[in-house]
Amino acid sequence: MSVLPSWRSGPTRAALLGFLEAAEDVPVAERVAYFDNDGTLWCERPTYVQYDFFVDELHRRVADDRTVAERPEFAAVLAGDPARIAEVGLPRIAVALADLFAGLTPEEFTERVRDFAGRTRHPVLGHDLRRMRYLPMLELIDELRRREFTVGIVTGGGADFLRAISTDLYGVPPELVVGTLIEHELGRTDAGAPELRRTARLVGGANEGPAKVTNIQTQLGRRPLLAAGNSAGDADMLDWALAGPGPGLALLVDHDDAVRELAYASESATLADTESITAVAARRGWTVASMATDWEMVFPAGQRS
Amino acid sequence: MSVLPSWRSGPTRAALLGFLEAAEDVPVAERVAYFDNDGTLWCERPTYVQYDFFVDELHRRVADDRTVAERPEFAAVLAGDPARIAEVGLPRIAVALADLFAGLTPEEFTERVRDFAGRTRHPVLGHDLRRMRYLPMLELIDELRRREFTVGIVTGGGADFLRAISTDLYGVPPELVVGTLIEHELGRTDAGAPELRRTARLVGGANEGPAKVTNIQTQLGRRPLLAAGNSAGDADMLDWALAGPGPGLALLVDHDDAVRELAYASESATLADTESITAVAARRGWTVASMATDWEMVFPAGQRS
Repeated sequence: MSVLPSWRSGPTRAALLGFLEAAEDVPVAERVAYFDNDGTLWCERPTYVQYDFFVDELHRRVADDRTVAERPEFAAVLAGDPARIAEVGLPRIAVALADLFAGLTPEEFTERVRDFAGRTRHPVLGHDLRRMRYLPMLELIDELRRREFTVGIVTGGGADFLRAISTDLYGVPPELVVGTLIEHELGRTDAGAPELRRTARLVGGANEGPAKVTNIQTQLGRRPLLAAGNSAGDADMLDWALAGPGPGLALLVDHDDAVRELAYASESATLADTESITAVAARRGWTVASMATDWEMVFPAGQRS
Repeated sequence: MSVLPSWRSGPTRAALLGFLEAAEDVPVAERVAYFDNDGTLWCERPTYVQYDFFVDELHRRVADDRTVAERPEFAAVLAGDPARIAEVGLPRIAVALADLFAGLTPEEFTERVRDFAGRTRHPVLGHDLRRMRYLPMLELIDELRRREFTVGIVTGGGADFLRAISTDLYGVPPELVVGTLIEHELGRTDAGAPELRRTARLVGGANEGPAKVTNIQTQLGRRPLLAAGNSAGDADMLDWALAGPGPGLALLVDHDDAVRELAYASESATLADTESITAVAARRGWTVASMATDWEMVFPAGQRS
């Protein structure tokens, strides 16, 4: 089985192969696929990798200056106490953490991301970043590219964070990464050269839900045939891919494998509190990829998966 | 002379070849070049092609409903009277013209652009759109691609307008076009399918001046080694390309050829009222491409150039 070798036979694999075949009739310029990142292309639990990056930076800052730890948002994070974090509120914490990087040039920020990416390990699995990626999804991306698809990533996380590593991890260049955007200011150095610096302000809001669709339109300009995600924040993008005029596929990664990864119900709060996201998927015609059932391997070789 | 055949020998051609050679030492992921469009890749006079597109649509609307012509912004445009247009003000006219397309889906808008692009002709030269492109710049783009550069377009005009034709005209996919952005709204059809529709509102402001640099950062995420433009609106982008750590080239197209195209001084108002843009170029280290001196051919064959 040379195509999608880590996908087990069954209705999900059949749906993927059927979609790939149908897409052969679509003009190359319209062969577009977008993937959510956290929980879709790589492991998002117990914490988002970008959150770990922020916390790592916070520890560096506190080592330099103990008083940094006194800021209530940072105190909650450093305590690692979900109740305190919930009390302060994640949005407020996110803004405070983004503030740590305000004033950096894009090059300095990229350098910090890459430094972190090279040394971080999953706290439970022990995997490095490359082995936190899902092998079946990497195979799907490769197969799409063989069929002349343009492959992009549409993440709820920071665009700049992912762009620093997307080429290396996924072969996706920065311009094909859409995410939550940080505003930059253009100033001039003493010598008169233009210089960009990060602020702590967002351009627009978080790249979640309907914003994923409108940001694809404004930043990428092409509608996907295939969209893949794993949570309520991806629902509009998945529906949009399915509703196009040509062949479409909406792929939902279901985290139901407590042995090889984790078993958890992706939050579906913005959809319907009483309905699981897999029930939503069935109702809306999304294709569900069960990690437990559909994936022969979860992570790339080199680690037990 | 197989490389850049339409570029005549001289300091400008030498600067281009020197840059291309120096860029061989730069990692492929950092080989990035961005081009302004109007007046840099194709002819922008007597009116912007996008303005002609808007006027064309306006005529269609007026043919359907004569009262449309009574709106002051449209009356000024239809009269074709520069004094009246100046009196109403171009920004107000631009908003009114954008309003003509509010409510269209992206697919409908793209269809209208392509229909127009297929039949428009330059009012003086008689060229179709493909022959309004500058042959030496097309050769430069081809040569950059041969050297594994990523080539994008950063236009002051509408991103959606150019994206509809950028692949066909320049081989540049939509995600590598940065321009002035129109906000879209995500709604649902009666059948419940998500559907995007244009508004008449801009996302941010016009993509000119410093915005070209900050929008490159947020939309593309990579700094250029080479930037090309022809007016004050490109100045920050040109400076930014030159100020990078590696080899850089800032290329300014000078419209000094009244015989084969047009001779006009690109506006440099935001730079210094008393200084020509070529004087600015000399002071800032930009490389000037004189149409009269440096270009053996201006437009692609098939028309006298």
